[in-house]
Amino acid sequence: MKQAYEDMSGKIIGGLEAGGTKMVCGISDTAGVMQSRILIPTTTPEETIPHMIDYFKKWKIEALGIGCFGPIDLNKKSPTYGTIMRSPKKEWSGFNIVRAFEDALHVPIGLDTDVNGAALGEVTMGAAKGCDTALYITIGTGVGVGVYCNGALVHGLVHPEGGHILIQKRTDDTFEGCCSRHPNCVEGLASGVAIAKRWGKKADQLADQPLVWEMEADYVAQAIANYILMYSPQKIVLWGGVMHRKELFPMIRERVQKLLNGYVCHSQIETDIDHYIVTPGLGENAGLTGAVLLGVLALKGDGYVI
Amino acid sequence: MKQAYEDMSGKIIGGLEAGGTKMVCGISDTAGVMQSRILIPTTTPEETIPHMIDYFKKWKIEALGIGCFGPIDLNKKSPTYGTIMRSPKKEWSGFNIVRAFEDALHVPIGLDTDVNGAALGEVTMGAAKGCDTALYITIGTGVGVGVYCNGALVHGLVHPEGGHILIQKRTDDTFEGCCSRHPNCVEGLASGVAIAKRWGKKADQLADQPLVWEMEADYVAQAIANYILMYSPQKIVLWGGVMHRKELFPMIRERVQKLLNGYVCHSQIETDIDHYIVTPGLGENAGLTGAVLLGVLALKGDGYVI
Repeated sequence: MKQAYEDMSGKIIGGLEAGGTKMVCGISDTAGVMQSRILIPTTTPEETIPHMIDYFKKWKIEALGIGCFGPIDLNKKSPTYGTIMRSPKKEWSGFNIVRAFEDALHVPIGLDTDVNGAALGEVTMGAAKGCDTALYITIGTGVGVGVYCNGALVHGLVHPEGGHILIQKRTDDTFEGCCSRHPNCVEGLASGVAIAKRWGKKADQLADQPLVWEMEADYVAQAIANYILMYSPQKIVLWGGVMHRKELFPMIRERVQKLLNGYVCHSQIETDIDHYIVTPGLGENAGLTGAVLLGVLALKGDGYVI
Repeated sequence: MKQAYEDMSGKIIGGLEAGGTKMVCGISDTAGVMQSRILIPTTTPEETIPHMIDYFKKWKIEALGIGCFGPIDLNKKSPTYGTIMRSPKKEWSGFNIVRAFEDALHVPIGLDTDVNGAALGEVTMGAAKGCDTALYITIGTGVGVGVYCNGALVHGLVHPEGGHILIQKRTDDTFEGCCSRHPNCVEGLASGVAIAKRWGKKADQLADQPLVWEMEADYVAQAIANYILMYSPQKIVLWGGVMHRKELFPMIRERVQKLLNGYVCHSQIETDIDHYIVTPGLGENAGLTGAVLLGVLALKGDGYVI
């Protein structure tokens, strides 16, 4: 990534990590260091977009990279490329975030999902550096999975939605789930919103209740075991608001090993899982750094490889 | 693939689809047409391997491609490259299938999993032709998933084991599952072996029992919904002994749509799923054709792209 920045010979690249609760905007210099970073609450496009446009105009950016919450149309051949699809965030459903910035900024714009952006950041200069297949999983307000496979971010038909894979509900869990579409998906049972709705309190007020965290670790481990069986990733970067509770990491790692039960034969999983399921090397900047990198790619053209 | 064959200018390529119950060996000419195809029962390496070596020697093959049951070490940098790992097939566990043929035939040998081989065949000249991300799923004695993603077969840390992802067991299913390692994986609950053990009869003797097939469709649909959410494939090729019962296809497609519940916004899934979850274009030859193709790649060198 540093190389990629240097290739930009002094150009200023903007990055936007577009989330359901907040928009993280940043400006990076040619050494890959953030010159500026601001947070704007995600309300409606009419209210939120102009604030961001003003910010990026002020910095005279020469390209913008966007890592956006989804579902979003990433198919450049599609007439609705850049449009946020059937999102639970009603005001944003059907909004074309790429066109909004293109029309105002007239610079090349790179787009991917927020989690794919974070995965790109971690693979390029974070905890998954050098991997050709790796995942970035976030357990926060929602659950998202960014997928880098065979040296590129995965889009396929639309883009992965690993946060919505179906898992087995515990018999002692009477909560109906908080996903409007799936009664037993990971996001519906293990997101921060799910925890708060199930227990009637926010995660930080539940620190002393072991069952809350055992259940959480069970659900996240089920999802990760399935991700490992499906993708065979070389590294799993796990983060998000809920994972700030570091005690969850050993609980999840132990359960993942138990669920796989020795079937995936590799020392990384069997004896070195502490270095396999890890926190992001870029910390809270994984998503924003990845977004900037999407901007670098947009300026370089699709053919450019970091 | 045809192009790939023509590039071989008259060379004879052997293919081996190595399965847990039978070994399918074939010889392909330069037009991609099978010149010969034989089946050898899979018993022990000592008994089965010499038969295959005789066959390939007789045809004077110039390269061999192997699509092998797993788990298998596909890492060329590993000292155990080509070795079948902790397999339920005890006699084959720890056996190096690549070395066995290299020592006897002295030709370039290509190796991948049986299902990755089949996926390569289908993507190159079958029902998934032209896709850059597609799956080949087989529901037979076992359950396997071949993964082609971003224009290449997926290996990652080891290789995908999608047949062992954990799914939700139906409350009316008292069967403990037939997988020695996972109580509720797809293979343990939905493979041909699972059906036979659960109901005490082989699938073909259960044709008139609706519950058998409703349960089967439920389990396979759960797995496919998760595969779609994880990989976002452009095409899903579904086959294997159990899927010879064609009535399962519409049952599975309907359940996949119901489980996804409109979350993956694409017409392929929402209105054209009959052309999204399909039978192999190469029929029973998907695995063998893919294996031959692995041989072509071995002869061409790793850099060669079909």
